Amino acid sequence: MRIGVLTAGGDCPGLNAVIRSVVHRALTGHGDEVVGFEDGFRGLLEGHLRALDLDAVSGILARGGTILGSSRLERARLSEAAKNCAELSRRYGLDALIPIGGEGTLTAARLLSDAGMPVVGVPKTIDNDISATDRTFGFDTAVTVATEAMDRLKTTAESHQRVMVVEVMGRHAGWIALESGMAAGAHGICLPERPFDPADLVKMVEERFDRGKKFAVVCVAEGAHPAEGTMDYKKGEIDVYGHERFAGIGNRLAVELEKRLGKEARPVILGHIQRGGTPTAYDRVLATRFGWHAVEAVHRGDYGKMTALRGTDVVMVPLADAITTLKRVPEERMDEAESVY
Amino acid sequence: MRIGVLTAGGDCPGLNAVIRSVVHRALTGHGDEVVGFEDGFRGLLEGHLRALDLDAVSGILARGGTILGSSRLERARLSEAAKNCAELSRRYGLDALIPIGGEGTLTAARLLSDAGMPVVGVPKTIDNDISATDRTFGFDTAVTVATEAMDRLKTTAESHQRVMVVEVMGRHAGWIALESGMAAGAHGICLPERPFDPADLVKMVEERFDRGKKFAVVCVAEGAHPAEGTMDYKKGEIDVYGHERFAGIGNRLAVELEKRLGKEARPVILGHIQRGGTPTAYDRVLATRFGWHAVEAVHRGDYGKMTALRGTDVVMVPLADAITTLKRVPEERMDEAESVY
Amino acid sequence: MRIGVLTAGGDCPGLNAVIRSVVHRALTGHGDEVVGFEDGFRGLLEGHLRALDLDAVSGILARGGTILGSSRLERARLSEAAKNCAELSRRYGLDALIPIGGEGTLTAARLLSDAGMPVVGVPKTIDNDISATDRTFGFDTAVTVATEAMDRLKTTAESHQRVMVVEVMGRHAGWIALESGMAAGAHGICLPERPFDPADLVKMVEERFDRGKKFAVVCVAEGAHPAEGTMDYKKGEIDVYGHERFAGIGNRLAVELEKRLGKEARPVILGHIQRGGTPTAYDRVLATRFGWHAVEAVHRGDYGKMTALRGTDVVMVPLADAITTLKRVPEERMDEAESVY
Amino acid sequence: MRIGVLTAGGDCPGLNAVIRSVVHRALTGHGDEVVGFEDGFRGLLEGHLRALDLDAVSGILARGGTILGSSRLERARLSEAAKNCAELSRRYGLDALIPIGGEGTLTAARLLSDAGMPVVGVPKTIDNDISATDRTFGFDTAVTVATEAMDRLKTTAESHQRVMVVEVMGRHAGWIALESGMAAGAHGICLPERPFDPADLVKMVEERFDRGKKFAVVCVAEGAHPAEGTMDYKKGEIDVYGHERFAGIGNRLAVELEKRLGKEARPVILGHIQRGGTPTAYDRVLATRFGWHAVEAVHRGDYGKMTALRGTDVVMVPLADAITTLKRVPEERMDEAESVY
Repeated sequence: MRIGVLTAGGDCPGLNAVIRSVVHRALTGHGDEVVGFEDGFRGLLEGHLRALDLDAVSGILARGGTILGSSRLERARLSEAAKNCAELSRRYGLDALIPIGGEGTLTAARLLSDAGMPVVGVPKTIDNDISATDRTFGFDTAVTVATEAMDRLKTTAESHQRVMVVEVMGRHAGWIALESGMAAGAHGICLPERPFDPADLVKMVEERFDRGKKFAVVCVAEGAHPAEGTMDYKKGEIDVYGHERFAGIGNRLAVELEKRLGKEARPVILGHIQRGGTPTAYDRVLATRFGWHAVEAVHRGDYGKMTALRGTDVVMVPLADAITTLKRVPEERMDEAESVY
Repeated sequence: MRIGVLTAGGDCPGLNAVIRSVVHRALTGHGDEVVGFEDGFRGLLEGHLRALDLDAVSGILARGGTILGSSRLERARLSEAAKNCAELSRRYGLDALIPIGGEGTLTAARLLSDAGMPVVGVPKTIDNDISATDRTFGFDTAVTVATEAMDRLKTTAESHQRVMVVEVMGRHAGWIALESGMAAGAHGICLPERPFDPADLVKMVEERFDRGKKFAVVCVAEGAHPAEGTMDYKKGEIDVYGHERFAGIGNRLAVELEKRLGKEARPVILGHIQRGGTPTAYDRVLATRFGWHAVEAVHRGDYGKMTALRGTDVVMVPLADAITTLKRVPEERMDEAESVY
Repeated sequence: MRIGVLTAGGDCPGLNAVIRSVVHRALTGHGDEVVGFEDGFRGLLEGHLRALDLDAVSGILARGGTILGSSRLERARLSEAAKNCAELSRRYGLDALIPIGGEGTLTAARLLSDAGMPVVGVPKTIDNDISATDRTFGFDTAVTVATEAMDRLKTTAESHQRVMVVEVMGRHAGWIALESGMAAGAHGICLPERPFDPADLVKMVEERFDRGKKFAVVCVAEGAHPAEGTMDYKKGEIDVYGHERFAGIGNRLAVELEKRLGKEARPVILGHIQRGGTPTAYDRVLATRFGWHAVEAVHRGDYGKMTALRGTDVVMVPLADAITTLKRVPEERMDEAESVY
Repeated sequence: MRIGVLTAGGDCPGLNAVIRSVVHRALTGHGDEVVGFEDGFRGLLEGHLRALDLDAVSGILARGGTILGSSRLERARLSEAAKNCAELSRRYGLDALIPIGGEGTLTAARLLSDAGMPVVGVPKTIDNDISATDRTFGFDTAVTVATEAMDRLKTTAESHQRVMVVEVMGRHAGWIALESGMAAGAHGICLPERPFDPADLVKMVEERFDRGKKFAVVCVAEGAHPAEGTMDYKKGEIDVYGHERFAGIGNRLAVELEKRLGKEARPVILGHIQRGGTPTAYDRVLATRFGWHAVEAVHRGDYGKMTALRGTDVVMVPLADAITTLKRVPEERMDEAESVY
C-alpha cells in the first residue's frame, strides 16, 4: 500500500514519534510505501510531499516539533478539496491517509473520510481535552515542564516570602493546571471548569502565613477566570500595546493578589516552553503506539476512525466521537486536587 | 478517626507523595489524626510510630525514598501478630491502617484484613506488574531514568560503532524494558516474557551495519533469558567473587554479542538509579490520587481493598485480586515494540 | 571559635551548599561552633539565631533557597548597628561572621568590617557581575535553566515559522543572556552592554527565512535596550495596570518585531524560574569550595575579605575590590557570540 | 582559506558544538571554506572528507557524539603520513587543519605540526586531565550525569540502610569523582591520586550509622586503588569471563565493604552514560569558544598551538605544553572535598 501522513495544528511533543512509528510499521511490518505531506493539509492540496524511508525518520524519536512542518487549517479550501478527494488520492497514488492533529484536524479528517477518502486519524493535543481517549501524547510533557518550573519557583517564593502565580496552558480545559498543580504541590489551582474567587486564594495564603509557611504558589490555567463579581477582569481584554496576552489571567491575578494581600505576588507565564522540546518517555511510548495502530487500522480497512487510549489498550474510535464533546476536568478530580494544599 | 500508615518493601519514587496525600486528606478533609509506623511492619509490631501533621509532610512531595523508612517483611512474625491484631489496633488506638507496598506487603495486608483489622492497601512497584491496576507509581520514573540513560548511550555508541547492552530492572515482568526500550528507540528489547535468541540480535545488528547504521542499543530486563539451547547461560550463576550480579544477563549478553559479532559490545547495568530520586510528575499525581482515595475508602468503611487505576479512574479492588496473578507484558505489546527498530 | 553565618539578598541556587560547607568545615575540621542568623542582617540585629550542627545541614546541599531565610538590607539600621558592632559580637559570643550575599550584602559586610567586626564575605549573584571573581555560584544554574527553555522553544518556533523573544535575567550585565544565548544557539542576543538596533534583528530574521530556516530565537537580557532613536521604548515605562514588568523589553521587542516583520513573534519571560530550585553540579562545587575557604580564612584571621574564584583556585580578595566596579560583558565575548548565529 | 576539521578519540559531549562554531566563524566571519574529515585521522589519510556549510551544522549544537565520526589513532600510519604531509595538504587544498581530540590526538597534531602542517588543536577530554587548560568541555557534562545519578541513589540508600559504591570515569586523574562526589555530597571519595584504605571507609560508614544516618554513598574513580596491603585487589585482574570490567574497583569495593561492615553494599557502575548525550550549557559555551578561537588562530597564523581556558579567557598554548604532564587533582582540592562528608 501507499500511505500518506501529515501533521497539522500547533506543535506537540511526540509528533515525530508518530511519524517514525508509522514509517517503521508500514515499511518493516507490511512492505508499504509512505509519503509525508509538508505543512499539513496545505502539502496535500498543493502537492508538497516526499517519500519517507527508514533513513528519513532516523533519529527523530526524541526530537520535538515535526519534520513534516505544520500549518493552521484553511477550512474553506479543504471543503473545496474534499469534493474531489478521489482525484486527490489518485494524483498521489494514495491508498490511505493518516492525518495527525487536534480537534480542527480531526474535523477535517472526518470531512475527507465522509467524502470517501480512506482516512485513519491520530489525535494530538497537549491540552488532553479530547473526550474519546484517556490521554493524548504531548500532555505528559507539558505537565512535566510546568511541574519542573513550579518546583524551582517554590524555593524562590519561600526565600522571599512571596506569592507566585504561574500561568499554564489550557484555554478550555484545565488538565495541565490540574496535574502540574498537583504534581508540584501548588497551594491553589484555578481551572476554566470552576470559576474561582480571589478571596479564597487570599484566605488560603493568609492561613499558610499564619501556619508559618511564608509563601504560596498558585497555578492558573490560561482559560481560568474569576467567578462573576469577584474581581474586575474581562477575558480577552486588550492592553495598551494592543496585546491581549500581557493582560492575561496570570498577570492580572498576580496584581490582584498583591493588592489584596499587601505582599509581593509575581506572575510567571510559562507559555510556549510547555509545547516544545523532547517528549517525555510516556509521550514517546503513547505516540509510537498510536502510529503502530494507525497502520494496522489501515491494513484492516478500519477507516473513518482514530486511535485512542482506553486503559492500557489502544483502540479505534469513530472520528465523529472524537470531536463532539470537549473532555473537561470532572468535579471529582478537582476535589482530589483541593484537598492536598 | 485515627489512621495508621506505613511503607514496606523496596524503594519506589512516589511513596512520600502517598504519605503526604493521606495526611492532607485525612487532616484537612476529615479532621482525622494520622500516625506513621517506622520501617514498615516492624514499626507496627514493635511500636515505633509518630504523629504526622501537616508540617511533618511539608516539602516531601518531590522527594524520593520514604520519610517513614521501610524494611523487608518478616512473614512469620507478622502471621503471629495477625492472630491478635485486635490487640494491636487497640494498643495504638487505630481505626484503620493504610499499608503502602508491593506484592509481599499486600499479601500481609490481606492477612491482617482477614484477621479483622480495617485495612486499605496502596500498591507500589516500579515493575508495574500488579495485575489489578493499569499502572503503579514509580514505574514512570524508572522508565524515564532508563530512557534518559539510553538517549545518552546512543550518541556514544554511534561515535564508536559499538553495541550497547543496557540492563534495566524487571525480574519477572518486562514492563520497564518494554517502555524504556520503545521510548529510547532501542534496536533490540529482551523481556522475561519471551526468551530471546542471541542469533536474532546478531542478525539485527548486522542488518543495521549493512544499512550504514553503525551502532545498536539492546535493552534487556534483568529477568530476561535466552531461549533453551541458544546461548550458554544459567540464571543465578555465581561468579568468582560469590556474586550473582556480575554474571547477570546484561554483562553476559554483552560478552556473547562481542564474541559473535566481532565488534565491541559494552554492558551498562542501570541498577538502583532507576528506583531512587524525585518522582516524575505522572508518578506524583498517581501517588497523590492513591493516597486521597485510600482515605476516602477508610471513611466509607471499604476495607480489605486497595486503590487501583482503571482508565482515568481510581477505583477500589479486593486485596485478593491484587496478588493472585502477576501482570506480564502481553504478546501484542511485544509486537508493537518489535516493529519499531 | 564561634562563627556566625547569614544569607542576604535575592534567592540564588547554592546558598544552602555554602551554609552546609561552612558548618561541615568548621565543626569537622576545626571543632568550631556555628550559629545561623535568620532572614539576613535582620536576624543579626534582632537576635534571631540558631545553632547549626551537622544534622541541621543534612540533606540541604541540593536544595534551592536558603534554610536561613533572607531579607533585603535596611542600610540605615545597619549603619546604626555598625557603630556598636563590638557589642553585637559580644552579645552572641561571635568570633567571626560570614555573610553570604550580593553587592549590597558585601557593602554591608565591608561596613561591619571597617567598624571592627571580624568578617569574611562570600559573594553571591546569579548575574555573575562581581568583578573580583571569575564566576559566582547560581550563575551556571540560571544559564542552564534559560538554555533548556530555549532548547524547547526552538522546535516550537520551527514548527510554526515564528520568532521567539526570550527575556532572561540581567539588569546591568548581560552574562546570562550571553551564555544561555550561546549555549542554546540563539540567533540574536541583546545585552545591556551594547544597545541594539531592531533593524539588525529584522535583517537577521529575514536572512534566515531566505536561507530556508523559517524561525528565529532572540535572547534578550531584561536590562537590554534599543540604541537611541531605533525604537520607541522607554525603560521602566509603566503599563496600564501600574506594572513596569508587562511593558518590559521582552514583551515590547516581540511586539516591535512582529510589526516590522509581518510574522508572528512571541515573547517568553523566564523570570524567577532562573533563580530557584536545585543548583547545578558546577554551582554546588563552587559554593562548597567558597564555604570551605571562608572558614579557613576565619582561622587564618584573614578578615575584611571575600572568597573569589581565579582560574581553578579559590583565593581571598579585599571586600573593597569586590564592590567598586560591576563586571560587564567585554567586547570580545560579544564578538564570539555574534559569529555563531 | 580552506580549513580542515576532524574529531578523534573517545566520545565527548561538545564535539559537535566545536565543529559548528568552526564552520560558523570561518564562513560567516572570514568567508572561508571548511571541510570535515570523517572518522578522525583515518579520513585524512584515506581521503574521506566532505564540505561543511551552515546547513551541514544546523541543529547539532545540542547533540552528543560527533557528526564527523571518530576513530582511535593508528600511530604508525600517522607517522608515516607525517613524512609527506605537505603532499596531504596539497591533495585536499588545505590551508590549515583543526584536529579536536585528547592526548593522543594532540600528540598526533604536534607530529603533523612539527612536520610542517599548519595545525591548531582543540583539546577534548571528559576527564579534565590536560594540564594546559583550566577545563575541558565534556567534563561538566560527565560531572552532571554522575551527580544526578548519586542524587537518585541517596534516597534509595537511605530507605534501605545501605552503602552504595558508585564508580565513575577517571583512569589516571580523579576530577570527575572529586567534583561529582562533592556536588552530590558523597560520604567517601576515592581517587587515583590518593590510594585509599578500606578501613577508613568502614570507619566513616560506622560513624554515620552511629549518628543515626543509616546509609552512605562512596564515589570511586575507575582508576582508584587501595593502598598497598589494605585490601586484596589487583588492578586489571581478569574475571572468569575474561573481562576485567566485572572485576573493576567499584564492584570489588562493594564486595569488600559488605564483608567488612556486615551491611548491604551495592555497586553502581555508571560507565558510558557519562560520555554521551547532550552537553550541558557550560560545555556548549566552552566548546563554542574553543572553535571560535581556533579559527582566529588560523587567521593569525598562530600554528602549533591549541586553545586553552585560563580564568575567563581563551588563550593559545603550544601543543608541546599540552601533552607533557597529566593534570592530576592537587592535595588542596582533596582536602576541600574531605571536610564535607
